[in-house]
Amino acid sequence: MSSQKLQVLVLGVGLVGKQVIHQLLSDLPTHLASQFSIVWLANSKQRLHVAAGLTGTAEDALSQLSKTEPHGLSLSKVIEEIVELAEGSRGKYLFVDNTSSQDVANLYPTLVGAGIHLVTPSKKAFSSSATLYADIFRAATQSKAIVLREATVGAGLPIISTLDDLINTGDTILKIEGVLSGTLSFLFNEYSQPKPTTTTTTTTTPFSQILRGAKEAGYTEPHPGDDLNGSDVARKLTILARMIPSLSNSDLLKEGFLSVPTQSLVPAALQDIQDGSDFVQKLPDFDADFAKQNKEAAQAGCVLRYVGVLDPQSGHIKAGLERYPFDHPFASSLSGSDNIISFTTKRYSPNPLIIQGAGAGAAVTAMGVVANAIKIAQIVLPL
Amino acid sequence: MSSQKLQVLVLGVGLVGKQVIHQLLSDLPTHLASQFSIVWLANSKQRLHVAAGLTGTAEDALSQLSKTEPHGLSLSKVIEEIVELAEGSRGKYLFVDNTSSQDVANLYPTLVGAGIHLVTPSKKAFSSSATLYADIFRAATQSKAIVLREATVGAGLPIISTLDDLINTGDTILKIEGVLSGTLSFLFNEYSQPKPTTTTTTTTTPFSQILRGAKEAGYTEPHPGDDLNGSDVARKLTILARMIPSLSNSDLLKEGFLSVPTQSLVPAALQDIQDGSDFVQKLPDFDADFAKQNKEAAQAGCVLRYVGVLDPQSGHIKAGLERYPFDHPFASSLSGSDNIISFTTKRYSPNPLIIQGAGAGAAVTAMGVVANAIKIAQIVLPL
Repeated sequence: MSSQKLQVLVLGVGLVGKQVIHQLLSDLPTHLASQFSIVWLANSKQRLHVAAGLTGTAEDALSQLSKTEPHGLSLSKVIEEIVELAEGSRGKYLFVDNTSSQDVANLYPTLVGAGIHLVTPSKKAFSSSATLYADIFRAATQSKAIVLREATVGAGLPIISTLDDLINTGDTILKIEGVLSGTLSFLFNEYSQPKPTTTTTTTTTPFSQILRGAKEAGYTEPHPGDDLNGSDVARKLTILARMIPSLSNSDLLKEGFLSVPTQSLVPAALQDIQDGSDFVQKLPDFDADFAKQNKEAAQAGCVLRYVGVLDPQSGHIKAGLERYPFDHPFASSLSGSDNIISFTTKRYSPNPLIIQGAGAGAAVTAMGVVANAIKIAQIVLPL
Repeated sequence: MSSQKLQVLVLGVGLVGKQVIHQLLSDLPTHLASQFSIVWLANSKQRLHVAAGLTGTAEDALSQLSKTEPHGLSLSKVIEEIVELAEGSRGKYLFVDNTSSQDVANLYPTLVGAGIHLVTPSKKAFSSSATLYADIFRAATQSKAIVLREATVGAGLPIISTLDDLINTGDTILKIEGVLSGTLSFLFNEYSQPKPTTTTTTTTTPFSQILRGAKEAGYTEPHPGDDLNGSDVARKLTILARMIPSLSNSDLLKEGFLSVPTQSLVPAALQDIQDGSDFVQKLPDFDADFAKQNKEAAQAGCVLRYVGVLDPQSGHIKAGLERYPFDHPFASSLSGSDNIISFTTKRYSPNPLIIQGAGAGAAVTAMGVVANAIKIAQIVLPL
């Protein structure tokens, strides 16, 4: 075991950030825990620098942070400080971005260019402009910094690493298809269930009512329109598509997720409603539209699922509502807010490789982040 | 990109071995292909040493090998030669064992002890005695050699790496359950299908007939009893169980797969039949027994699946025939010879993390091997 440690810098101490700290401080087996030292912790208001590395629990760490003076700095100033901190010790610092800030994402090229390794569950940097994406990986190549992002799609599920392995070993991706939004998974798993055709006339709970329940349980964004517009799925598709050589080299995703044809489930008439509660209040007016689609699908022996589909051969990428036969895994084996993704490849066909499970939540998201951190330590620290 | 390469030594050039060579020589993207140099190739009869590294196709390589003089050496002598070859250049050699030879597996401690990294799809070393297992990893720790074995369970499916990530990030494994034998998956997917209870009286194809078809299609071992006895599943369970700290430290798996309670589907009266065709000939006598079990399961709304189950909390490990309700993923979403595995953990519960797909076949098995080789190159070669 090496006595060297990876110096960890954590930005963002919300639900996921706290779990990341908890796993690093308390959950890892000893031989792995000894590879990390959390030396810096911050949110937009405060920061804590502990050169010797944090000890104790995540709660202790957050309590210490809360007692510091407000830094009063812009995020770019904070990042500037980190770059200074890491200077001269290239390759030994790991930045963990637990924010979902586009401003922080925009600074990744600076961070990575300084030789700081990066792990994040944030989709922002990898699903916005092609320029930012290229800048990050160009900087990484030059500085030999490692950038990993398992938790950006399906949280802790091994989706990014599996796609990486398929591509790296020379398989050809024929189709990727998945229920990638936990919220939309939950809504349609509740709303559209496989049923014998004889019962298709049975009334189901109206869509708006299921959404209301989900919002009250905290399963949706504060404004549920931010789930229903499909942008989360479009962002995840962008991240996956950019890993596939034939798509990453095209102009197809120049504007990132904005370039993905995305079906919004927000009724046109409700598009300008700013308040989430107002939105939920008015959604029942559109229940008949949802019911019609659901009934038509059921009559065809199908359920509705909001999916992302990616076909590298034709270059088609899209996010939207699709029908799946009752015995399709997306229809039959999905429950709760689970994600499911299927990879049909030259090697995995006709039957695809399927991965399913919780694709959101603090503990599993942090797992994706921490598993990536462990991989970086394995590569960077001497054997 | 580093100019250093991992020197690859390949033993075994059957279906999987040839695919491994093919992927390394022809399938990898350029930046990864440049990290490997296949310098040695052998089977039990011949060997080829190309210090400059093989070029051309896998066919070229095998043709070159076929033209060499028979080495006339025992396997331990061959391994001795490799150890000499690798001497003085520790950490730059990777041995790929594509045989399923217990003799070769027994020599892993010697190989790994010489600082030679090891990747293999062979279950032998990791599912036999606890002594051999401990010797391999003790040798690896001392010499800093890396031993990876993704393809030993579920071929290229990310099963070992996922279990590794779960454990490494501090999750608690509550249950692992899986259809882990492609052959047994195929047999029971054909024989025992989810059906509305009204049709449970419909006659299904007799078990022996499905087995006969599978044997003729080359899906079974030459003697199908070697599939039906469950030892393949018991071996895979052993490999998984040994990764779980609470089980690996116990005496539970002292004799490896022989220590796993395993239900054999070979009728007692047929246990001594040495010839595969004789066996298939006599199996129809026992169709009524299989049919009875299948009917009883169907009447309870269930199908039969041959699974491996592992419960670290109670220490229970077993391989055998189990019933699953029609809407369970093992019943509803499985087809062909697919493997499926579900991990129920502290973080992934009540809904488990599920991985499904082809768990056998040369191309996907080689993918697991080559993905492991890429990981080792990433760790070992300078950034």
